[in-house]
Amino acid sequence: MTQIYNKVALIGLGLIAGSMSLAMRRAGLAGEIVGHARSAETRATALEIGLCDSVFETAAAAVAGADLVVLCAPVGAMGDIAAEIAPYLEQGTTVSDVGSVKKAIIDAVLPHMPDHVHFIPAHPLAGTEHSGPRSGFAELFENRWCLFTPLPDTDPEKLENLTRFWTAMGANVEKMDAEHHDLVLAVTSHTPHLIAYTMVGVAEDLQRVTNKEVIDFSAAGFRDFTRIAASDPTMWRDVFLNNKQATLEILGRFTEELFDLQRAIRRGDGDHLFEHFTRTRAIRRGIIDAGQDTDAPNFGRAPKKDA
Amino acid sequence: MTQIYNKVALIGLGLIAGSMSLAMRRAGLAGEIVGHARSAETRATALEIGLCDSVFETAAAAVAGADLVVLCAPVGAMGDIAAEIAPYLEQGTTVSDVGSVKKAIIDAVLPHMPDHVHFIPAHPLAGTEHSGPRSGFAELFENRWCLFTPLPDTDPEKLENLTRFWTAMGANVEKMDAEHHDLVLAVTSHTPHLIAYTMVGVAEDLQRVTNKEVIDFSAAGFRDFTRIAASDPTMWRDVFLNNKQATLEILGRFTEELFDLQRAIRRGDGDHLFEHFTRTRAIRRGIIDAGQDTDAPNFGRAPKKDA
Repeated sequence: MTQIYNKVALIGLGLIAGSMSLAMRRAGLAGEIVGHARSAETRATALEIGLCDSVFETAAAAVAGADLVVLCAPVGAMGDIAAEIAPYLEQGTTVSDVGSVKKAIIDAVLPHMPDHVHFIPAHPLAGTEHSGPRSGFAELFENRWCLFTPLPDTDPEKLENLTRFWTAMGANVEKMDAEHHDLVLAVTSHTPHLIAYTMVGVAEDLQRVTNKEVIDFSAAGFRDFTRIAASDPTMWRDVFLNNKQATLEILGRFTEELFDLQRAIRRGDGDHLFEHFTRTRAIRRGIIDAGQDTDAPNFGRAPKKDA
Repeated sequence: MTQIYNKVALIGLGLIAGSMSLAMRRAGLAGEIVGHARSAETRATALEIGLCDSVFETAAAAVAGADLVVLCAPVGAMGDIAAEIAPYLEQGTTVSDVGSVKKAIIDAVLPHMPDHVHFIPAHPLAGTEHSGPRSGFAELFENRWCLFTPLPDTDPEKLENLTRFWTAMGANVEKMDAEHHDLVLAVTSHTPHLIAYTMVGVAEDLQRVTNKEVIDFSAAGFRDFTRIAASDPTMWRDVFLNNKQATLEILGRFTEELFDLQRAIRRGDGDHLFEHFTRTRAIRRGIIDAGQDTDAPNFGRAPKKDA
């Protein structure tokens, strides 16, 4: 047990906050965990499952006396929350967040932050297709990366404490600037999500193939896309609205490349297709070697082969 | 033990043939399993792991005396194999295949088939991102669909035997015409694969994001695409070359829909994005209810939450 903060306030009580609470308790990182959610039902659930020691009807009330405040709400709500809590933040409090975009959050939150608090933007690259307070689990952050995009004048001691905090929850921490973060995530997360949402929408809209066929015959590839496309709609709406520039840039690259392969199919250029399909195997190997995915066939979903 | 065939010849000894062999032996479906692969190394492996009771240097030698011949080679190789084995097929033999497209295979194989054999095209919707004879496992076909695209004059008894055969290996069997099969698979498999290959290629090509960043920060969505994009390049080259029309049709629909969402991002139309992202959740639910995917978060890759 190595307590790092006396009182942690979680604003927004979904998958990430729920997992943080379990990971904090497991490692004894917080003296007390309090929280706020807009929905009375979510607050009641959070109390019932012990996600929070106490819950508050307003974010302002939740942050009183906290030495760490973590904004776990959808990206689009961060600015209003920052404005609301600002007058109630204690001297020396660290304010952080878990949002999937960083530049827009800094632009929305920083102007509200009083000089006596330390705002350190952060983004744990972890999640599942499930959402809500009951979907959290303590192991969510294990060997996942938490990216910090600290501002130039960040207090080194506060940064060190937050690094220890995330490390103790199982994550690896790396620092980069916000703009680069948003580009990296446009590649590794935002564009893949948009593409998956698009493909699932196409399949659902077709007249000549029934939804029953799409569902029954999904195991040949399509089902993987539906997991991503089942992610929380509010969260993802806000991601795209707030990482517009980088997402559109990567989508442009994607379309260019797709047209190139489409043209190869139309022209029957098998060598071009083969060359492309061979090249993409290496990066899968890298991801497995880096411990970011399993090498088990089909993500280990299918019964295992006899070793 | 309910033996259905005396001697089964597998032409092409990769993931599917390897899994069929294990599933056949488990259920006692074949008196003898023989095979052929072009590569001497693959043939040696097949003998070593017991995939086949005996292997042959030519497909022609392998089919002699077989009452079931299953073509398990890449789609583009089927026509030549059919031409080679035709003179050696016994009276009454059933010839089938496991190819991912059906119309092109019928066009390539049927002209070579003598009148005294029964050609029943089939496609088990099962596989993993791994390939080769060692990647097979007996459970691969369990609760997966095997689609038959029988020709109009197919012998009902031979069709019934092949249905019993696949059912005994764990699959559900459904019949449809070849053209519809190719459209359904363009939606549920071929286009998703092309999109995944494209996205992984884009990520690998970027100058402003390093491959190390792509790999380390892949858990936020991208890693799912890399599994599909690690599939066998020869197999997939042949799929696209041989299901050109349906794949291009679905790609056209995909691009149309992608541009619609891209435009919503550019214009900041959050309602449109939210509506689309909400709609796509239902089909995921259907796939889970149909037993075609797991409801465990992240396909069950992450440590499970305490129930």
